[in-house]
Amino acid sequence: MEFKIKHEFFNNAISNVSKAVSSKTPFPILTGIKVAAEEDCLTLTGSNSDIFIEKIIPAVIDGVKVLEVFESGNAVITAKFLSEIVKKMPSDIHIKVDEEQHMTITSDDILTNLNGFPSEEYPKLPQMEHAEHIKIPAIKLMEIIKQTAFAASKNESRPVLTGVHMSFKENRFSCAATNSHRLALRETEIDCNITGSFIVPGSSLNQLAKLMNHEAGVIHIFLTDSYIVFKAETILLYSRLIEGRYPNVSGLIPQEATTVITLNTNQLLNGIDRATLFAGEWKNNNVHLEVKEDSKLRISSNSSAIGYIEETQKINDISGEKELSISLDGTFLMEALKTIQEDEVRLSFGSSMRPVLIKPVGNDFYLHLISPVRTN
Amino acid sequence: MEFKIKHEFFNNAISNVSKAVSSKTPFPILTGIKVAAEEDCLTLTGSNSDIFIEKIIPAVIDGVKVLEVFESGNAVITAKFLSEIVKKMPSDIHIKVDEEQHMTITSDDILTNLNGFPSEEYPKLPQMEHAEHIKIPAIKLMEIIKQTAFAASKNESRPVLTGVHMSFKENRFSCAATNSHRLALRETEIDCNITGSFIVPGSSLNQLAKLMNHEAGVIHIFLTDSYIVFKAETILLYSRLIEGRYPNVSGLIPQEATTVITLNTNQLLNGIDRATLFAGEWKNNNVHLEVKEDSKLRISSNSSAIGYIEETQKINDISGEKELSISLDGTFLMEALKTIQEDEVRLSFGSSMRPVLIKPVGNDFYLHLISPVRTN
Repeated sequence: MEFKIKHEFFNNAISNVSKAVSSKTPFPILTGIKVAAEEDCLTLTGSNSDIFIEKIIPAVIDGVKVLEVFESGNAVITAKFLSEIVKKMPSDIHIKVDEEQHMTITSDDILTNLNGFPSEEYPKLPQMEHAEHIKIPAIKLMEIIKQTAFAASKNESRPVLTGVHMSFKENRFSCAATNSHRLALRETEIDCNITGSFIVPGSSLNQLAKLMNHEAGVIHIFLTDSYIVFKAETILLYSRLIEGRYPNVSGLIPQEATTVITLNTNQLLNGIDRATLFAGEWKNNNVHLEVKEDSKLRISSNSSAIGYIEETQKINDISGEKELSISLDGTFLMEALKTIQEDEVRLSFGSSMRPVLIKPVGNDFYLHLISPVRTN
Repeated sequence: MEFKIKHEFFNNAISNVSKAVSSKTPFPILTGIKVAAEEDCLTLTGSNSDIFIEKIIPAVIDGVKVLEVFESGNAVITAKFLSEIVKKMPSDIHIKVDEEQHMTITSDDILTNLNGFPSEEYPKLPQMEHAEHIKIPAIKLMEIIKQTAFAASKNESRPVLTGVHMSFKENRFSCAATNSHRLALRETEIDCNITGSFIVPGSSLNQLAKLMNHEAGVIHIFLTDSYIVFKAETILLYSRLIEGRYPNVSGLIPQEATTVITLNTNQLLNGIDRATLFAGEWKNNNVHLEVKEDSKLRISSNSSAIGYIEETQKINDISGEKELSISLDGTFLMEALKTIQEDEVRLSFGSSMRPVLIKPVGNDFYLHLISPVRTN
């Protein structure tokens, strides 16, 4: 293998695929990046065996020649060293790999030689040639992920809950995530002819959101037996799926409420942010909400060792019973509010042990549920 | 105690003095910040018992009233909570402390109550009223610290070496730091009538450099029996001194050299930076330097497990023997080069086991020594 490449493009591609590489892996070859040169493009792959990230650099980008391949072939080189060396090179990079998998990297008067792994031992990517696929604008997919993936469980004791449940049915794409104390649910209309549902690891989706945050075009989603593939123009993320049965979450959404209040989203977020400062001293990050004098919400948190904080906020609109007193996990509430872009938010309360329903005003495609905590 | 203060000034002052506060201290009261209100100013103090940082907020700054004291007094409040609460307050802050040392902080409709420590138990600051003192422009002092403090030892086994040796003699101010493998020495002319020398902890000076990096005026240095005090206009740092005898470093500086080479500072720094990537795999961060073909310097580093890197750089000027081969700790060399502002640097080599002398070209007030490492 031998090629010459513009410094910036190689550097960025290495940085992209390195996101999948972990230095803590039982498989030494996965500490490496696979570099494969074909006549008209270079493909880099990084993986931690749960996800694969693949980046394609074509020979010409925006009319400028960025890559010249003299001999095709491939090599696997430790991500850490390849990335640091390339970052520190002053100009365009010339790479040559010999039959013993030694990679020589030259740039101006600088010469580096890195020992490679046997590239035939690098794991094969799942095949997706005949897989079904869906198209979705990148911006919309990023929004959906940011609104749901955070709510998945961090605890591996029930693996299905560490994933986001994605289901496709009659042009409706729905994503749900829950850790059994809170739930985020987002639906959207989409042009698709697939019916089915899949559990995608929350960590893969968080990685995807970082990787494709600035993509402007369309993302193609391919589904294979045990993998889901997200493909933008020159970058792909493959994630394994979680096997198992996801709980039926639609039955959890309360249909009735005793008190419904509407508040300014940002003001409420700031208030909860202040109150969680003490809430962190509690087991459940307890923040206490009380409706007072019909149109005021009192937010408070109390720790006998440290002190207390309280504030009152204006309720824009209230219906149902005018008295309310409930304790919630402040961090859960804050995380939910952070994903709401709308100016106003509506909180619907049932009895003191029923989950609170949180919905942006003017958007019926998105909701949160948070279970109250017992304070006595 | 009771006062009202502009949010921004209180927040910045808390952030300043918090730099001295450690959450890991055997003295719970030192997790707090002391807030003392007098008729016309507020003084905040933070400490980890090795250093004290004191910040004074006058009632009027640049003609604007920023502070109004209704009742003088003082209190000690946990730095972490005071800092986070104040940061999250929306506007000006009203503080009141009752006799049980409970601090009430209000801002708009938000009320917080924090439990305080008994303020009379807070350690007293060292007295410096009649102490001798020196004046030095802040910019010059910051430069001197950045050029020396990094070279002090991180290892506590010889406490004096963890400090910077500051000595004053006949209008000459000299600073030296060494970890016994490398030495940084900086001298400067100064208007002072003190004779004496002191060992100041490197960590205190690093803290000082962070704290006073943007000071434009003059810094007054006061010396007491066991403390040194750096005083800018409204901020002071008190540091304990290290007791003991500092080694005589002036005798270490080689007076003769067999080879002297002059190189471009930045180019050499970049080359050493690249070579230390592999050097990190060695015990001594070995980087190898060789003079070749009279006017070329070859920089290389080699690790049998990973690979090797090499580059050649132009030597601007060479005198003495034209052959040289030496191994150095690349990190030490890089750290020394980073503090040199001059375009060119001169390296003087003796025999292969004598320390290398590194001096900026055109500046006789500043030098580094680095001991070679054995490679066999």
